[in-house]
Amino acid sequence: MTAIRPFEEADWPAVWAVLEPVFRAGDTYPYSPDLSEAEARRLWIDQPEATFVALDAAGRVLGTFYLKPNQPGLGDHVCNCGYVTAAEARGRGVARAMCADSQAIARARGYRAMQFNFVVASNEGAVALWRKLGFEIVGTVPEVFRHPRLGFVDAHVMHKKLAAD
Amino acid sequence: MTAIRPFEEADWPAVWAVLEPVFRAGDTYPYSPDLSEAEARRLWIDQPEATFVALDAAGRVLGTFYLKPNQPGLGDHVCNCGYVTAAEARGRGVARAMCADSQAIARARGYRAMQFNFVVASNEGAVALWRKLGFEIVGTVPEVFRHPRLGFVDAHVMHKKLAAD
Repeated sequence: MTAIRPFEEADWPAVWAVLEPVFRAGDTYPYSPDLSEAEARRLWIDQPEATFVALDAAGRVLGTFYLKPNQPGLGDHVCNCGYVTAAEARGRGVARAMCADSQAIARARGYRAMQFNFVVASNEGAVALWRKLGFEIVGTVPEVFRHPRLGFVDAHVMHKKLAAD
Repeated sequence: MTAIRPFEEADWPAVWAVLEPVFRAGDTYPYSPDLSEAEARRLWIDQPEATFVALDAAGRVLGTFYLKPNQPGLGDHVCNCGYVTAAEARGRGVARAMCADSQAIARARGYRAMQFNFVVASNEGAVALWRKLGFEIVGTVPEVFRHPRLGFVDAHVMHKKLAAD
């Protein structure tokens, strides 16, 4: 690690190679495990306001995240991000770097806070990391996620204020 | 009141007449107060799984609600609804009837729970009604709504289990 820069068109095959195994595993994101590459592209690239990639020194994609308003209109001062780290790059601080960078980007774009709507409770590494990075669990919704091995699992709503005022 | 039946194409002008003043007021839903009729139609009719209307004996539209999965794929066993009552029909139990009906419809469609993601805290009538109807506040997100008079206001995440098991 690591440079983090905006997604470019030529990144898609490498980004999809990072996303696909995570979505297929179906234990962290609610997307259907058999979603198509086109649908993934729509969700990760087309719908969000912006998408970014984290690269190693050789230019390989180690992770990716998107940034978007969490609500339209009167809620669009709060953003939402989603992060995925390549399986082979876990434990190297990629998610931490992406989350820190996303907060700086969100602040620069004028967002006042960041909200995660669906942090699967059994994804304990993510929950612990977001807490370390200043996010609070502001709610827990019971049994909203169908985990492939654990069955119905809770998900947390997590929030961090970004604006000083 | 009241029959509740699925939205039909010819209902749109009456439905829009119910929705428009509520969205323009901007004190309950996060949609931009200047959203267009086409955008409202996309949000209320096209995107949801189903939309319904509540009618009085003369066939006038007193209210409307939509039903949709709250998440894709692995979260699609939980539904989300949004309700709007015509200004002139407030206090006549229309919202209560719509919410009760929506729960029955959701159960019949196999949903295990219903979740509201963004119940504006200052909308105390709605919060009280949903609680009476069995919804619990499972989280409160600080200052996520820009209220036209009150400034930044919290929103609640509310949840009700529908399935017996």
